[in-house]
Amino acid sequence: MSKGYRTRRMAIDYQTPLVTNVKNAKILIEAIARHYDLEISKVDYQDFSVVPAAPLILRKPKDSPTIRELLANSPFRNKHIVSVSQFSRNELHLLFTVAQEMRLGVEREGCLDVLKGRVLCLMFFEPSTRTSSSFDTAMKRLGGQTVLISEAHSSTQKGESLEDTIRTLDQYGDAIVLRHPSDESANIAAKFSDRPIINAGNGSREHPTQAFLDLFTIREELGTVNGLTITFTGDLRYGRTVHSLCELLKHYNVTIQLVSPASLALPDKVRETLKSRSQLGVVSTNLTPEIIAKTDVLYCTRVQKERFEDPQLYERVKNSLVVDNATLKHAKQNMIVMHPLPRNAEIAREVDDDPRAAYFRQMKYGMFVRMALLALVMTPVEEGKRRFSFV
Amino acid sequence: MSKGYRTRRMAIDYQTPLVTNVKNAKILIEAIARHYDLEISKVDYQDFSVVPAAPLILRKPKDSPTIRELLANSPFRNKHIVSVSQFSRNELHLLFTVAQEMRLGVEREGCLDVLKGRVLCLMFFEPSTRTSSSFDTAMKRLGGQTVLISEAHSSTQKGESLEDTIRTLDQYGDAIVLRHPSDESANIAAKFSDRPIINAGNGSREHPTQAFLDLFTIREELGTVNGLTITFTGDLRYGRTVHSLCELLKHYNVTIQLVSPASLALPDKVRETLKSRSQLGVVSTNLTPEIIAKTDVLYCTRVQKERFEDPQLYERVKNSLVVDNATLKHAKQNMIVMHPLPRNAEIAREVDDDPRAAYFRQMKYGMFVRMALLALVMTPVEEGKRRFSFV
Amino acid sequence: MSKGYRTRRMAIDYQTPLVTNVKNAKILIEAIARHYDLEISKVDYQDFSVVPAAPLILRKPKDSPTIRELLANSPFRNKHIVSVSQFSRNELHLLFTVAQEMRLGVEREGCLDVLKGRVLCLMFFEPSTRTSSSFDTAMKRLGGQTVLISEAHSSTQKGESLEDTIRTLDQYGDAIVLRHPSDESANIAAKFSDRPIINAGNGSREHPTQAFLDLFTIREELGTVNGLTITFTGDLRYGRTVHSLCELLKHYNVTIQLVSPASLALPDKVRETLKSRSQLGVVSTNLTPEIIAKTDVLYCTRVQKERFEDPQLYERVKNSLVVDNATLKHAKQNMIVMHPLPRNAEIAREVDDDPRAAYFRQMKYGMFVRMALLALVMTPVEEGKRRFSFV
Repeated sequence: MSKGYRTRRMAIDYQTPLVTNVKNAKILIEAIARHYDLEISKVDYQDFSVVPAAPLILRKPKDSPTIRELLANSPFRNKHIVSVSQFSRNELHLLFTVAQEMRLGVEREGCLDVLKGRVLCLMFFEPSTRTSSSFDTAMKRLGGQTVLISEAHSSTQKGESLEDTIRTLDQYGDAIVLRHPSDESANIAAKFSDRPIINAGNGSREHPTQAFLDLFTIREELGTVNGLTITFTGDLRYGRTVHSLCELLKHYNVTIQLVSPASLALPDKVRETLKSRSQLGVVSTNLTPEIIAKTDVLYCTRVQKERFEDPQLYERVKNSLVVDNATLKHAKQNMIVMHPLPRNAEIAREVDDDPRAAYFRQMKYGMFVRMALLALVMTPVEEGKRRFSFV
Repeated sequence: MSKGYRTRRMAIDYQTPLVTNVKNAKILIEAIARHYDLEISKVDYQDFSVVPAAPLILRKPKDSPTIRELLANSPFRNKHIVSVSQFSRNELHLLFTVAQEMRLGVEREGCLDVLKGRVLCLMFFEPSTRTSSSFDTAMKRLGGQTVLISEAHSSTQKGESLEDTIRTLDQYGDAIVLRHPSDESANIAAKFSDRPIINAGNGSREHPTQAFLDLFTIREELGTVNGLTITFTGDLRYGRTVHSLCELLKHYNVTIQLVSPASLALPDKVRETLKSRSQLGVVSTNLTPEIIAKTDVLYCTRVQKERFEDPQLYERVKNSLVVDNATLKHAKQNMIVMHPLPRNAEIAREVDDDPRAAYFRQMKYGMFVRMALLALVMTPVEEGKRRFSFV
Repeated sequence: MSKGYRTRRMAIDYQTPLVTNVKNAKILIEAIARHYDLEISKVDYQDFSVVPAAPLILRKPKDSPTIRELLANSPFRNKHIVSVSQFSRNELHLLFTVAQEMRLGVEREGCLDVLKGRVLCLMFFEPSTRTSSSFDTAMKRLGGQTVLISEAHSSTQKGESLEDTIRTLDQYGDAIVLRHPSDESANIAAKFSDRPIINAGNGSREHPTQAFLDLFTIREELGTVNGLTITFTGDLRYGRTVHSLCELLKHYNVTIQLVSPASLALPDKVRETLKSRSQLGVVSTNLTPEIIAKTDVLYCTRVQKERFEDPQLYERVKNSLVVDNATLKHAKQNMIVMHPLPRNAEIAREVDDDPRAAYFRQMKYGMFVRMALLALVMTPVEEGKRRFSFV
């Protein structure tokens, strides 16, 4: 008899509530901390015992801070968000705590009114429907409004500099989300804007909210980041998301495995950094059963045909990294598969129905993280401090 | 002396309130049911009698259901709306009752707050300003928010499947309005989306809300659909709207006349269906005075040049179906002219000022019908059932 | 000792509050009129005197009208706004008074709820991100909603007339902002629309809100328009904004100087009008130190390469009109530099940091003026007059 069996057996014998995984424990603790109604209906449990169950006695915990309290002390108020390296570990955790509150809020109410009366400018100089609609929805679910400025920005076509465009448009909104093909764009914008700039992708440099949402996905799906083995596959050379996530993982105790064709390997500099933090695990050109078996998070990325001079090489490489049901036979039961999407053939469609496929849920976590970030940056100083009332 | 004269005469002699058409009767009954202020001012009537008028005594009727009550029991909550054939006659009537409430609400208040805190995704893979702005406004007049995703969807360009796009984007909004050039799109979307899909045109297949708004227009303009003669003219072969409307008319007792060039005749299958329901009237290639004289609803459609191999044939056909003031001389006084718009030359501009020209009003009815449909699909379960309050 | 010194000296000696410029005086009077808290903190002033300061005694003035009162009597309610020539001087001042209230409201609250429940249609048949996002934000900061219809209007592509498009789309919104390349567009729209049309640029004709915002900028920056010398530079021939502003300046006592290459001079007709009003000052092809020295408002416009047949001429002209720090050495301390933006090389980047550079602030004033105009046109008759309540 396994240790697991004995633990469960004893829990029943001694009528002790037992939680068997970290994720559920977190949810339970949260529920207790918030004084939710914990009444259990007949459909929620099976009764094996005739002995009256010991009541679940809960002492009233110190109240956890409300969302307004968390936002009132935001270290990001009116700050530019340009790079993941701006964030300390505590700040990351604040972001995730607020994101969790956003998730609860949306699930219960649909929209909050945290940013009522605020206007967010979405400036997308290259198309990215996914990111722009994520920010758009995030702002609206916070009770705010958005103004969209698309890539075909007419004044830019008339030869206007990014600097001028930013200085013009920051007169309208209360913050600007900027996506721009140039690596320097976010820094230029931050220099000239009176309003906070939120970087939504500057060329091949960074895409901070993508990295935040990746980390938040891991936390929400697996309960914790520490102690995990994370395997990156695909294009590790050009994949902006992988580099940013590696940077953020410095705050955690993780093992990182790398699987990619030689020509798309992680840049030396990033790999050396991982090594210096003692986070580097197996490095391979093949996704072997051994690598899969150790993996808690399988993070796949898209291999783009354009990266290859030799199309035959592309075909071979592309297929060598495909994740399908056969691949996942070797994987743990509670691991997750992630992907920044859109995918091509890296993940077979049959995997979609596997509960471990987290890539669509990842999109939703992205909305919560963006809500949290927008709220932390844009929430005005608390109402009480305002002096005048209007009309 | 006609029967009409005697009825009116008697009404005056016996001081009995008389309503002379169905439309006015409906409006009056509605007013009575809602206990509106029925005081009549001097500008509203002419007094021919010195005898004191009998007071209009109104017994308090059983209260008609409020809009919230109608929505609370919506059979469409969280349902996909893919085809007109999903709708029973009772469900159609519920839709129209709610649409009428929407009309009253908009006329009085501009916007309601029925969908406050809800987000609608508008995904248009082919341009249709008319439909997309109708849904956009409808959602906003319900107090909700929209997120637009236009045809130039970047990820689709990167080779993403519709399935993946839907599964990604349904993470953000609470429902999706989808317009797509492929016939299968709406069904694919409905299969993979966790959120309700509302079909706003799938290829040449269906465009359900267009058919609903056509029917609603007839009801609002003429008071009832039963007993009417409806004449379809123009391109009956490819006209998606005509086919859907024919399908919906199975719920009513109507006569349908068909006028089109031979090459653009109604498909045999649809015509046989009409015949089997005993709804088929005259079929002709010319819009004759006799046909016009019998018509209560003249439903014109656009004849597209692209459908013709021989441009000369197009020119001849195009002109043979034009509706102008001369055409309408033979028509009833209380008939209406409809058109799904945009029009080319099918309806002469001079007709626009004729009160029987209903095609611009038709657009507004469309907004009310879409408001009703969105409300029926997206209204959350009643507030009272929610357990937790947030912040 | 100058007169200025003696005035200041006496103010201190006699302990009399002294305000040294019109702009500050206006702000102070406003504060007094609104009974703001006038407590002065230690950081706001330097104390040179040990004598207790005379208290600033304020009699309670007659209350200035609130924004709702101003809007309740709007002469523009449901009116088309097609041309600046529609506006009397009193109406202009009402517009600016409301715009000032909008400024205060936005600075304190972010958004108002003056147009809650109203929907504005933005129809842009040619791209103009700046104008469209200004109107978009303006509407949202008034608590309203917008529906955007962009230049790629599909039905227009299907050959629909502007008239039909307007008659269709005015069924959805409560007002239409129209930008169209044709000179006749605004008048056609006004003729056929049941909803108020706001002209946001009709071909080379007019762009009324640009002229309003220019004037409002001068008032807000310099306190008054009367008595000023305004210098226009650049392309005075094709520059729509210059023509409209000249038209509006008939209401004021100003001197207008004109600086442009001969080929881009102000059209004779406009110049004769200025002369007949005795407003015309120096006319020159060079921006000389003398002209600059007299200038209170330097209004620069873009010189477009397309206007020149000879590219060399363009290069010479372009550089002869550049405003840089050297140019501004000759200018007054409290003058301002304006530009409708986007700029090319007319204003050197080094000028941006000069407090006299008002062109970016001008954008913000534009939003306030557009808010004021939308509110004056779209505010419904006061709540009290509505008869029925809904739901």
